[in-house]
Amino acid sequence: MADEHSNMMLPNKQVVLKNYVEGYPKESDFELRSSVICCQISQGSNGLFVKNLYLGCDPYMRHRMSSHKSKDVPLLVSFKPGSVITGLGVAKVIKSANTDFEEGDYIWGMTGWEDYSLIQNPNGLFKIKYTDVPLSYYAGILGMPGLAAYIGFNNVCSAKEGDVVYVSSAAGGVGQLVGQLAKMKGCYVVGSASTDEKVNLLKSELGFDDAFNYKEGNDLAGALKRHFPRGIDIYFDNVGGNMLDEVLLHMNLYGRIAVSGMISQYNLKKPDGIHNLFCLITKRLRMEGFSELDFRHKVPEYLEFAIQLIREKKLLFVEDIAERLENAASAFVGIYHGRNVGKQIIQVSTD
Amino acid sequence: MADEHSNMMLPNKQVVLKNYVEGYPKESDFELRSSVICCQISQGSNGLFVKNLYLGCDPYMRHRMSSHKSKDVPLLVSFKPGSVITGLGVAKVIKSANTDFEEGDYIWGMTGWEDYSLIQNPNGLFKIKYTDVPLSYYAGILGMPGLAAYIGFNNVCSAKEGDVVYVSSAAGGVGQLVGQLAKMKGCYVVGSASTDEKVNLLKSELGFDDAFNYKEGNDLAGALKRHFPRGIDIYFDNVGGNMLDEVLLHMNLYGRIAVSGMISQYNLKKPDGIHNLFCLITKRLRMEGFSELDFRHKVPEYLEFAIQLIREKKLLFVEDIAERLENAASAFVGIYHGRNVGKQIIQVSTD
Repeated sequence: MADEHSNMMLPNKQVVLKNYVEGYPKESDFELRSSVICCQISQGSNGLFVKNLYLGCDPYMRHRMSSHKSKDVPLLVSFKPGSVITGLGVAKVIKSANTDFEEGDYIWGMTGWEDYSLIQNPNGLFKIKYTDVPLSYYAGILGMPGLAAYIGFNNVCSAKEGDVVYVSSAAGGVGQLVGQLAKMKGCYVVGSASTDEKVNLLKSELGFDDAFNYKEGNDLAGALKRHFPRGIDIYFDNVGGNMLDEVLLHMNLYGRIAVSGMISQYNLKKPDGIHNLFCLITKRLRMEGFSELDFRHKVPEYLEFAIQLIREKKLLFVEDIAERLENAASAFVGIYHGRNVGKQIIQVSTD
Repeated sequence: MADEHSNMMLPNKQVVLKNYVEGYPKESDFELRSSVICCQISQGSNGLFVKNLYLGCDPYMRHRMSSHKSKDVPLLVSFKPGSVITGLGVAKVIKSANTDFEEGDYIWGMTGWEDYSLIQNPNGLFKIKYTDVPLSYYAGILGMPGLAAYIGFNNVCSAKEGDVVYVSSAAGGVGQLVGQLAKMKGCYVVGSASTDEKVNLLKSELGFDDAFNYKEGNDLAGALKRHFPRGIDIYFDNVGGNMLDEVLLHMNLYGRIAVSGMISQYNLKKPDGIHNLFCLITKRLRMEGFSELDFRHKVPEYLEFAIQLIREKKLLFVEDIAERLENAASAFVGIYHGRNVGKQIIQVSTD
């Protein structure tokens, strides 16, 4: 008995939140813990034992590192200090007590930042159908960030051919796709990012009509004026804060603002004040928040749409892959300083 | 010749903007000028010579008293210091060179704050069809404020039976009607106003389910918590600023905010910062500005709807009528301090 049990224990590295984060997250807010995990699934359980392959560094996760409760958005409920970080990722099923999944299946959804996870409630997981594309894509363009771009662009932006579209944080997991969707619609698309390298990527790889480094010259108003001589019809906002405030002044009549994320605000104690909302009246703007979590039923439709375009190389996705859990904290911290070029992924294992 | 000409001159009191206003408008920003006006309409003109009866004190007018240009909203183009104030009002046609209007017609639309006005371009004016209701209503419930409520509520709020609706500045020209429209739709409606007298009016006369004095106790958060134990589904915003910021925290999932006005902000050099826009994402809120100016084509439809209800006393409207141009400046200044009870109107003449 004792032997059998010990055979079921596997070494398991875990990324643990040490304490609630204040301000920008630091590597020291996390700890890499050497642990062991039992791969036994208890009788009568519905669970899965999985090996984690890829983990997404998603900006929203910073919220869970502060102490608060959100009754509206389960994904914003605080982590417990001392517990393993959880997030969206890709994993392989090692053992299954669930009839929907079997050993060897690849899945994506909420998992732990660790080598192996025991997922007690696999209801929210998706089985991966197409494995002829990089599996890491299911933590990015074929996962929730992709769905966010698809839903936000299609349901909120009311895009028409010829519209001028501005995407902030355009080289990120959501932004890259929004830009490409907008181009498919016949829009004129401008992206912003925090380095010249990313700006080049947007223009030369991802098909943006124009792009700019918003940090350059410290002159947001001037940059928006130069890059949007005809104003902005659609702003896909991934950053919030001062950028949003300035963009309001550059919006065209009847413009739409899809509020997808506010990465510039997540590390602030008090969010920036937005002063230009009177533009909503003078320009008859619509500003709308959304969550891809409300559209899980759209995942199959979205995947059919995206997989074909990815195979035909009509939809591209740039990833920044950090290898091994040892580098997870540094990769996560990096996204708030714009260090990643493309969607930040942590590769725990390739298979 | 000389005599004939002089017969055509009429004494004409005018309310003139002395200088651009800074901060809250003061009576001393205006001047009552004794002038004369020629009632002759030049040959080949399209114009009207009208006697002004009622003038609306509309909050947006404060904008025109600052020095700026708005290319988007003609009604926000600055007044010229030394010129007569213009605004929405009701007048009687004395002479007409326009085939659409004849002597004795009543009209509503843009006119001057003076006894008589020569309206060179009557394109934007509406002829009054129904005179069995107070003519002053065409500067309020049957004019642009009424249309604003109708359009804003019907086009932006997506109201359903049982929704919890909050209307700020609820005793004003727009707010009164929004509340009554919401009740007709089967919503639970709460209004706020700046005095207990207005709060009573909302509850006992205008059919609001509940109302509160937002100035009482200086505790906006507490007041919202008490009056909205089930949260807010629809916020019809007439005030902007800190109230808007606090309301964001009390909105329900999938709530809608119709941005109609921001009276709390018009006298500030720098508008208040709004810090809680992250709620747009967490609660999937839609926030939308609109202008009734875009819906002039809806005026006939709206009037048919409203006139019948007014006749049946199913739609009420409370006015605060200041008599004579001598009291115009004081009445206008008063609306920014909440001194009016009901829509502030200036009665220039009864006929």
